[in-house]
Amino acid sequence: MATKSSIMDTNSYSDDYSSLLSNTTRDMINRREKWMGGAYRLFYRKPVNLVRGQGQYLWDAEGNKYLDMYNNVAGIGHCHPAVVEAVTEQMKLLNTHTRYLHERIIDYSEDLLKMMPDEIDKIMFMCTGSEANDLALRVAQEYTGGTGIIVSREAYHGTSALTSGCSPALGSEQPLLPNVRLIETPDYYRHGGTPEEFTAWYLGEMQKKIDELAATGYKFSCFLADSIFSSDGVHPNPVGFLKAAIDVVHKNGGVFIADEVQPGFARTGDAFWGFARHGIIPDMVTTGKPMGNGIPISGLAAKHEVLAAFSDKLPYFNTFGGNPVAIAAAQAVLNVIKEEKLQDHCKVVGAKLLKALQEVKDRHPDSVGDVRGAGLFIGFELAKNDGKKTPDQQKALDAIELLRDNNVLTSVAGPYGNVLKLRPPMAFQECDIDWIASTLDKCLHQLES
Amino acid sequence: MATKSSIMDTNSYSDDYSSLLSNTTRDMINRREKWMGGAYRLFYRKPVNLVRGQGQYLWDAEGNKYLDMYNNVAGIGHCHPAVVEAVTEQMKLLNTHTRYLHERIIDYSEDLLKMMPDEIDKIMFMCTGSEANDLALRVAQEYTGGTGIIVSREAYHGTSALTSGCSPALGSEQPLLPNVRLIETPDYYRHGGTPEEFTAWYLGEMQKKIDELAATGYKFSCFLADSIFSSDGVHPNPVGFLKAAIDVVHKNGGVFIADEVQPGFARTGDAFWGFARHGIIPDMVTTGKPMGNGIPISGLAAKHEVLAAFSDKLPYFNTFGGNPVAIAAAQAVLNVIKEEKLQDHCKVVGAKLLKALQEVKDRHPDSVGDVRGAGLFIGFELAKNDGKKTPDQQKALDAIELLRDNNVLTSVAGPYGNVLKLRPPMAFQECDIDWIASTLDKCLHQLES
Ligand SMILES: Cc1ncc(COP(=O)(O)O)c(C=O)c1O
Ligand SMILES: Cc1ncc(COP(=O)(O)O)c(C=O)c1O
Repeated sequence: MATKSSIMDTNSYSDDYSSLLSNTTRDMINRREKWMGGAYRLFYRKPVNLVRGQGQYLWDAEGNKYLDMYNNVAGIGHCHPAVVEAVTEQMKLLNTHTRYLHERIIDYSEDLLKMMPDEIDKIMFMCTGSEANDLALRVAQEYTGGTGIIVSREAYHGTSALTSGCSPALGSEQPLLPNVRLIETPDYYRHGGTPEEFTAWYLGEMQKKIDELAATGYKFSCFLADSIFSSDGVHPNPVGFLKAAIDVVHKNGGVFIADEVQPGFARTGDAFWGFARHGIIPDMVTTGKPMGNGIPISGLAAKHEVLAAFSDKLPYFNTFGGNPVAIAAAQAVLNVIKEEKLQDHCKVVGAKLLKALQEVKDRHPDSVGDVRGAGLFIGFELAKNDGKKTPDQQKALDAIELLRDNNVLTSVAGPYGNVLKLRPPMAFQECDIDWIASTLDKCLHQLES
Repeated sequence: MATKSSIMDTNSYSDDYSSLLSNTTRDMINRREKWMGGAYRLFYRKPVNLVRGQGQYLWDAEGNKYLDMYNNVAGIGHCHPAVVEAVTEQMKLLNTHTRYLHERIIDYSEDLLKMMPDEIDKIMFMCTGSEANDLALRVAQEYTGGTGIIVSREAYHGTSALTSGCSPALGSEQPLLPNVRLIETPDYYRHGGTPEEFTAWYLGEMQKKIDELAATGYKFSCFLADSIFSSDGVHPNPVGFLKAAIDVVHKNGGVFIADEVQPGFARTGDAFWGFARHGIIPDMVTTGKPMGNGIPISGLAAKHEVLAAFSDKLPYFNTFGGNPVAIAAAQAVLNVIKEEKLQDHCKVVGAKLLKALQEVKDRHPDSVGDVRGAGLFIGFELAKNDGKKTPDQQKALDAIELLRDNNVLTSVAGPYGNVLKLRPPMAFQECDIDWIASTLDKCLHQLES
């Protein structure tokens, strides 16, 4: 295995730790390895066997309670009753496909598009983030007549042949497509400078990559990015820096696909969508993970003229995509986000969490280089205090194992695998701050001693 | 729109018929077109607005009851209580991903693999049939070191960039990938001859296509096929003909991917899988549609040595794939198929249905060319009685509209779009035979007069 990033398996189970496992856990792992394909990876040296979830908490088979600091799929909280009820009721009534009329998909399309800029006025539904990005890339290519794709240095955009060829996070064994170029991670912590300088640097990088594509014979088609650069290590700042680079994309005849699989659906607090934080109007928006709170549903929203380049020519039918049950889940999620005012909640509680984590950083100057975030999407970066901000992947990996032993679940991200990605269900409350902050404190002390 | 096949839209709504629509239906269509991408197609000149399903029946908003002769996704019957209950209970408990241990996915992996030949001993889970085929193609390419792909002349294998490039059914606007070759539809009705002659012809075609790939510089990698050739127009006979062609695939160093998205899960009656009817051991098996009775789940099962070529090198993580809720649905489906003995049921009731439909054919020699099937998977082919078996697409399209007006739902398939695809939920009962047979009779009479 040659992957380097957290997307996949830096913290996977390895045989060395099997002596630490209970017999039950070992048996489960053995049975899992017997039947399930080897591409599956488990989190943790001592994998957890979760059996129950509620809100921001999870329980393992032995009854231990965990704080979930990782799962943005259960966006409105594990097992939210509104989703359970909506899905159950719709399952009892009907579950069929989009070749028949159904009110729910039309209502939801309207409701979701109303959360987007006016220019984004058409939507389609799939089952996974990968499918949304795969289609978005094809639409971009039809619309622009180009094939060149730019993604971020450590991007992850999906599992399909096309999207995995645009996912450097999968590691060196996964070749990038020949028409893909990587733009540098917008790492403000390491790059520094004023926001204006940083913005100018990043837009310059964008132009360079577009020129590189042209020089190698690929007409530029699109920039596909997660605007919070989650798998690049969570880079929300300086707010607005991305806009100028998107202007460059447009000036060069390309389109911007905002991959909202991670930042979307209110999590950043600043806005309902990650791109909106930066004041951008994308040409296409892809959504996934939190959209149905775990029921598989994803979406591709687009400007009508962009989508038409594809749909005037080609049909698209996704068997389960947008079925009434998946739509019921998505509608319940959207309603709950509005009713429970979760965007405000993320802003308020996220700011307090960030402050508490920055205090942890201040207490551990030799371990923690930077803490940054937007709402309930925080990157906690472990770096050496050597004047060079040297990433400390080992400490990050050890920290997530220790956190797990102390009943806090999370994972790492970034090109150096040294950033703790703290992205709890939005059910996370002020009263949970002490749990994560004091546990981090304790674990870092232990690692420093 | 240049598509020719039923996969997408031969029978889509067109403006000409809007005068026939109720105001409610017209409003829904307008709202749908306003918000939803133009690649969506509706069935029927007068689209149906379904609101309820139970077993083999569906109801529209006005309370009209329909016999569903089309939907194999609701394989064990619309809204089967076992699935509703299993999904609801699991949704209340926990829904998370495959990086934590969970009993259900391990149990289900074992249960499902036990339904396959011993050689197929590893499984992975995705959300859609497209995702399963996309991954299977990549695995085949890693394993064989070749890229050449053979699919059937009118095949449909999915929505992703890779699988739609292997889907001639999408029509002429969707280019095939340069490394894809089409093998002729195994149309025994038109080809004729003894089973032995037919078998020899088809294996010869296979060798030709492999040779063509080689001659154009593509090392052969795989043959990807739905063994009942559903979108080619449903070609189950002569039973066993496919085996010799698969031997040719293997002799040439290729692998066979059995796409069981359509024939899988007991429907053909002869066997649990379509490939098993032909006595074949595939190298990989992809599953989808009926697997979770509408809850998005798909699978890729493979020989361990084939899968290892991919998974020893590359990670794969599908966010929703194999989550506890999707697995709960799939487990319930598998249990119900066993408990309700649905394979036997399909064999017995399917034979009676076939006989009744053959009697319809005998009463309409000028309209119906052939009726063929396996279990509850039947092709009813409209052809002119002109000694040349000229396909009658217009009559097929008119027939499905008339059937719809008479409360029977189905669609067309095949390269000529002239085969009614009769593939009801397996909840279809003997008492329903008269409904479909007499309605077909009536509609054909009307079309003939
Ligand atoms: C930014 C981003 N895009 C796309 C995907 C793919 O989503 P899925 O696993 O649902 O296919 C992911 C999944 O991790 C993601 O993080
Ligand atoms: C034979 C076959 N394979 C694959 C697919 C793709 O399945 P999905 O729509 O779930 O992606 C289909 C869907 O119609 C199919 O019929």
